[in-house]
Amino acid sequence: MEGKGSQPTLSQQEAFARIRLLRSPNIGPISYRQLIARFGSAAAALDALPDLASRGRGPYRPASADSIEREVMAVRAAGARYLFHDQSDYPALLGELDSAPPILTCRGHLALASAPCVALVGARNASAAAVKLARDFAAALAEAGFTLVSGLARGIDGAAHEGALPQTIGVIASGIDIAYPPQHAALQERIAGEGLLVAEQPPGTEPRGRHFPSRNRIIAGLASGTLVVEAAPQSGSLITARLAGEAGREVMAIPGSPLDARSLGCNQLIRDGAVLVQTPDEVIELLVSFTGAPRSRFRVADSPGAFDYAELARLDWGEARADFSHDIAHLLTNAPVAIDELVRQSQATPAEVHMALLELELAGELVREADGTVRRA
Amino acid sequence: MEGKGSQPTLSQQEAFARIRLLRSPNIGPISYRQLIARFGSAAAALDALPDLASRGRGPYRPASADSIEREVMAVRAAGARYLFHDQSDYPALLGELDSAPPILTCRGHLALASAPCVALVGARNASAAAVKLARDFAAALAEAGFTLVSGLARGIDGAAHEGALPQTIGVIASGIDIAYPPQHAALQERIAGEGLLVAEQPPGTEPRGRHFPSRNRIIAGLASGTLVVEAAPQSGSLITARLAGEAGREVMAIPGSPLDARSLGCNQLIRDGAVLVQTPDEVIELLVSFTGAPRSRFRVADSPGAFDYAELARLDWGEARADFSHDIAHLLTNAPVAIDELVRQSQATPAEVHMALLELELAGELVREADGTVRRA
Repeated sequence: MEGKGSQPTLSQQEAFARIRLLRSPNIGPISYRQLIARFGSAAAALDALPDLASRGRGPYRPASADSIEREVMAVRAAGARYLFHDQSDYPALLGELDSAPPILTCRGHLALASAPCVALVGARNASAAAVKLARDFAAALAEAGFTLVSGLARGIDGAAHEGALPQTIGVIASGIDIAYPPQHAALQERIAGEGLLVAEQPPGTEPRGRHFPSRNRIIAGLASGTLVVEAAPQSGSLITARLAGEAGREVMAIPGSPLDARSLGCNQLIRDGAVLVQTPDEVIELLVSFTGAPRSRFRVADSPGAFDYAELARLDWGEARADFSHDIAHLLTNAPVAIDELVRQSQATPAEVHMALLELELAGELVREADGTVRRA
Repeated sequence: MEGKGSQPTLSQQEAFARIRLLRSPNIGPISYRQLIARFGSAAAALDALPDLASRGRGPYRPASADSIEREVMAVRAAGARYLFHDQSDYPALLGELDSAPPILTCRGHLALASAPCVALVGARNASAAAVKLARDFAAALAEAGFTLVSGLARGIDGAAHEGALPQTIGVIASGIDIAYPPQHAALQERIAGEGLLVAEQPPGTEPRGRHFPSRNRIIAGLASGTLVVEAAPQSGSLITARLAGEAGREVMAIPGSPLDARSLGCNQLIRDGAVLVQTPDEVIELLVSFTGAPRSRFRVADSPGAFDYAELARLDWGEARADFSHDIAHLLTNAPVAIDELVRQSQATPAEVHMALLELELAGELVREADGTVRRA
């Protein structure tokens, strides 16, 4: 992560500017980090935003200071704190993701994220046997010193949290002050008090469909391994498992009979390379010796343009001229393309291409894909 | 296999001598083949036996001609025929095993062994669901053109045969004229009529414990892949699967919940490297493209002294002097040792060492392990 440790203390003013920058239109984790790298601070980036976004149809309006004032008060009122990606207590494994959330809000005991973490996820409509199994696995893993990460969903997730309390992290798709699902309001409150509750969305955010895959990457990112218990094919649990695999983490699944439809997702995951586990000891054995080379064998899709932030930070952004963003726009289609390819075709420097892409993104003309490729919006 | 195709016709006299040689004391598949390689024919080997075995305590008595007369009559009476390992209709995949049975007896349609074969084995006390699943898999595999190999045991084996009839091979641990288990007498008779029934033991042999692992190597050896449906840990089905893995064949297993003890064997097998399969199509896809490089990943135990019969046949047995078998005997302990190691330590030629070991074996002083190592009896 660029700048890690370089900002031992973050001024209240810069923290405020960072929140405001991230909440501004067309800003994602990547453009956020690029802007801070380019302008040295979020405050300077905010000043530059209207000019950078001048390609857009109307004038660019950053998030208002008022709205951020209200957000900060809501976070305080919820008993939560902000956590920035370059702070020393930001979870290290999560920080390794290209798409690591630049800002999180959290309640509870942040030290839980420093212990070895294991994610346990699964179906909402799980069988009674699987729910009990999830609870028993979670209890045994907590007993062995692991922090159990899950998503507070009904079924497997909730049972895992309950089994592991207080050694558990709940990652929610809503804002930190919203209880979701409603059936787990009490459990969420208990996790916030005894464990750790984490949210990426601003307070007040009701969870939408698109928030869940985003949330799942945080679950997978916090843990050195993800265990799936009963999951339907194409379910969110499998997305979490695949994100874990792509991040180079261990992926584990509990099998079931092919005659039980609730087993199909886990069985397919094992066919795809997840390690079949039957007991908590097998999970512990895998993760205690985890050194970043998972025993599970996932074919990771080629990620042709994953970001190297260290390299981005080294680029001479000060010299980068983006007045050819018009040319870059012409190179883009609806089909995703690697940024390296754009550098080759445009014969510009990487810094120039990144600046041009940033301008296009701020103008709402660019979409960044999860694999680091870009396409026309 | 040495001599394959070199004996297009086998004289009735030599066939008789071969049966008599194999049924003689202290003769196994390896010494049988070594003796024929050394003396050119079973008849000549039989003549040499008493002298070769002179180290033994009493005089060596080969199987009596009378007992072999009775055996041949019993095989005929059972409507069975003999099949010798170097005959052209001996199943090719089975012939690849170091421990390929030199002589089989069989009833039914030998052509079934020339079709691609898949073995399906599992627990005797299987669940009703697994028995139905085995029958359905077998029917689908037979429909796709595979011959289904199994062991005629109660439970999974029987269901697999029934599902695949007539495209099925039953390999029994008893003699060809003994129905075992008694509950499957009618099924065994049906397989002998419509499919193929194979036995390694002489007619009249009641199955003993030691016959079953021996029989299992034939099931695994006939098939390009072995599928296990419900098996207890340390069960015969797992032995069959491991023998298949060691022979470089595909190993597949149907998973189940860790909460069901009947799943533990299959789940462990998948952890050890078997391919998890859920549908007959997944089995077909694996085996149709099988080229001798299995997708299952079994750590095969090092086999330090597996026999290379082609090399053995090339050794100059005529020159080999075995008068130092006494010295070789001194090198042996109860701990298995590789024959290569004995060659190194004795500073003798491989042919001399093999002859010495043969003499020790005939005298009842040597045990050959499944992995090709030898130890003191």
